[in-house]
Amino acid sequence: MALRVGVVGGGQLARMMIAPAVELGVDLRVLAEEDGMSASLAATAVGDYRDAETVLAFARDVDVVTFDHEHVPQSVLATLVDAGIAVHPGPHALRFAQDKLVMRARLQELGMPQPDWAAVTDAEQLQAFLDDHRGRAVVKTPRGGYDGKGVRVVSTGTEADDWFATLAEDARGGALLVEELVDFTRELAQQVARRPSGAVRAYPVVETVQRDGVCAEVIAPAPHSGGRLEDVAARIGITIAEGLEVTGMLAVELFETTDERLLVNELAMRPHNSGHWSQDGAVTSQFEQHLRAVLDLPLGDPSPVSEWAVMVNVLGGPTNGSLDDRFDAAMTEHPGAKIHTYGKAPRPGRKVGHVNVVGGNLDDVAYEARAAASFFDD
Amino acid sequence: MALRVGVVGGGQLARMMIAPAVELGVDLRVLAEEDGMSASLAATAVGDYRDAETVLAFARDVDVVTFDHEHVPQSVLATLVDAGIAVHPGPHALRFAQDKLVMRARLQELGMPQPDWAAVTDAEQLQAFLDDHRGRAVVKTPRGGYDGKGVRVVSTGTEADDWFATLAEDARGGALLVEELVDFTRELAQQVARRPSGAVRAYPVVETVQRDGVCAEVIAPAPHSGGRLEDVAARIGITIAEGLEVTGMLAVELFETTDERLLVNELAMRPHNSGHWSQDGAVTSQFEQHLRAVLDLPLGDPSPVSEWAVMVNVLGGPTNGSLDDRFDAAMTEHPGAKIHTYGKAPRPGRKVGHVNVVGGNLDDVAYEARAAASFFDD
Repeated sequence: MALRVGVVGGGQLARMMIAPAVELGVDLRVLAEEDGMSASLAATAVGDYRDAETVLAFARDVDVVTFDHEHVPQSVLATLVDAGIAVHPGPHALRFAQDKLVMRARLQELGMPQPDWAAVTDAEQLQAFLDDHRGRAVVKTPRGGYDGKGVRVVSTGTEADDWFATLAEDARGGALLVEELVDFTRELAQQVARRPSGAVRAYPVVETVQRDGVCAEVIAPAPHSGGRLEDVAARIGITIAEGLEVTGMLAVELFETTDERLLVNELAMRPHNSGHWSQDGAVTSQFEQHLRAVLDLPLGDPSPVSEWAVMVNVLGGPTNGSLDDRFDAAMTEHPGAKIHTYGKAPRPGRKVGHVNVVGGNLDDVAYEARAAASFFDD
Repeated sequence: MALRVGVVGGGQLARMMIAPAVELGVDLRVLAEEDGMSASLAATAVGDYRDAETVLAFARDVDVVTFDHEHVPQSVLATLVDAGIAVHPGPHALRFAQDKLVMRARLQELGMPQPDWAAVTDAEQLQAFLDDHRGRAVVKTPRGGYDGKGVRVVSTGTEADDWFATLAEDARGGALLVEELVDFTRELAQQVARRPSGAVRAYPVVETVQRDGVCAEVIAPAPHSGGRLEDVAARIGITIAEGLEVTGMLAVELFETTDERLLVNELAMRPHNSGHWSQDGAVTSQFEQHLRAVLDLPLGDPSPVSEWAVMVNVLGGPTNGSLDDRFDAAMTEHPGAKIHTYGKAPRPGRKVGHVNVVGGNLDDVAYEARAAASFFDD
């Protein structure tokens, strides 16, 4: 019988596992939130991932459960583990991806370089942090944020009063995370795969370009990352993967500071936008690697197949019609562009696809990826 | 609405169209011969491709019909065309892939280099051909052969009597094809994609290694094929694609003779075993290219992403268990090997998967591909 992987969540990350699953002969099954999701081709169930019975029923028919996102509640994860079902990444690891305060505290224990941070429960504590950090800081809700949501730059202690008020109503109580505003020259991302049995493989560190808090572009490897920078980034990724006992793909978002340090920004325990280049630019894509890792199979070679790869996100998409209306124009001009679509209706700011280009000259590769992706904007 | 491609036939060629279809957002639908075929994930219908009603019902819901094989009868194809359905490759082109005598006659008209050949209807005519060609020749049934079936090397005129007898019972009548036994140094294959609107793109010519009439291994590009050989092969492929009005992928199997000529051996009008390397070794794989071509989209760049790619078929597979029982061993030793499985039960001589490896050194690449594939044999 084929190896069976169950993915909770039917978004584009689950969708992009379909291609390597078909090639390896892995029976990929998806629990989708609703009909017509990105990964609907592989959907074998539709239901609420917050409902333990729904997830358990789905999970009973697979060899391992993994995720399209990190939002499955700990109580649901516990139900799976109690039923003897393999879950990767496991609940313990996922906790660090679900709560940024828990993550910051654990990274501190591991001695990982990170921005100054504190847990604050009111405007007064926030103001005290601001006073210690040149009057500006980043406030984050510890749970539920993504793509810039739940993140706010503040310069007075009262600017997070609405979030403090929400916390006061939350039975779990809790605090906000405040972090120093880092002077960075650029953002990087380090991906690492880890098997349950312990083996790890690091991808080359990449540069990520964010616009309005959303990843717009990735350059792989990060320019000028040879030697020490590459090694330091890989070491950080591997230390976190091992220290947090992550299984599957881990992405560590990093700031490269003006004083040449790398500081950990965010973590993701799943395939990640910063690794989409690997579909066309690496021997083993992050999606195949994630399947191998969660199945506890030997990890594939994460080496690049070409000197450079550039990924450009398609954000929003055409206001009239669908992405494939633009295929003719984009493909005519850019026969070397690899177009990936997510089967999602266009909507301003929404990630609806991406374009990868690989080659030997970074200027050419970046130009072609941006130009090809631009055909899908309005 | 997504672009819809209907594939008649549920074998591994249809299966390998799934990955690029998902990435491009093409709605791929397969008419499978039975349940549990290689391409079952995309199967939307099960039925007999020789039944016009079955195929027509399947075809009404797609934008274009294409094929996993060339065996759909002309009468069924005519029904589709009469109903106004786009069919690529079209019936006229497919005729040349369905009947080797028709193919030989047309290639002769086009001035293509090919072995000496003749249509023979009895042992006497066959003996006359043998007498003119040093006493040995290859006899082929014009229809229905593949992977060495329907092909026989003979040295006397009576060695094809059983086939002549079968022909005599065939209401359509007809002849056998006899071809000179070519002194070749190696076999090559040239792939070309052609859109209905006329544009063509040639892949690099590759070397194919056959064992017992079945493709065992492909080296891309063919060693020492730079310059004139590459150009001549591409020109032959393009001339045939245009002359036969092929749409989609065309593979031209070639002999390279001891006197340095290229002679056309066989044609295939679909993705072909000689192009499986392109999944991991070319900017645009033959499977994506076939989808683009039959949808009349602009063709992708067929350039290699690496200096060398080697594909090794997995023939037969493990006598005990399934291919994925061998993943652990194969992936441990060969993290850079790309394993492709067809979801077919192992059976002696059956193509059940293949392994691709790419890299800069041919010796290393070929060694790794062969070694990784060998884990799946017994």
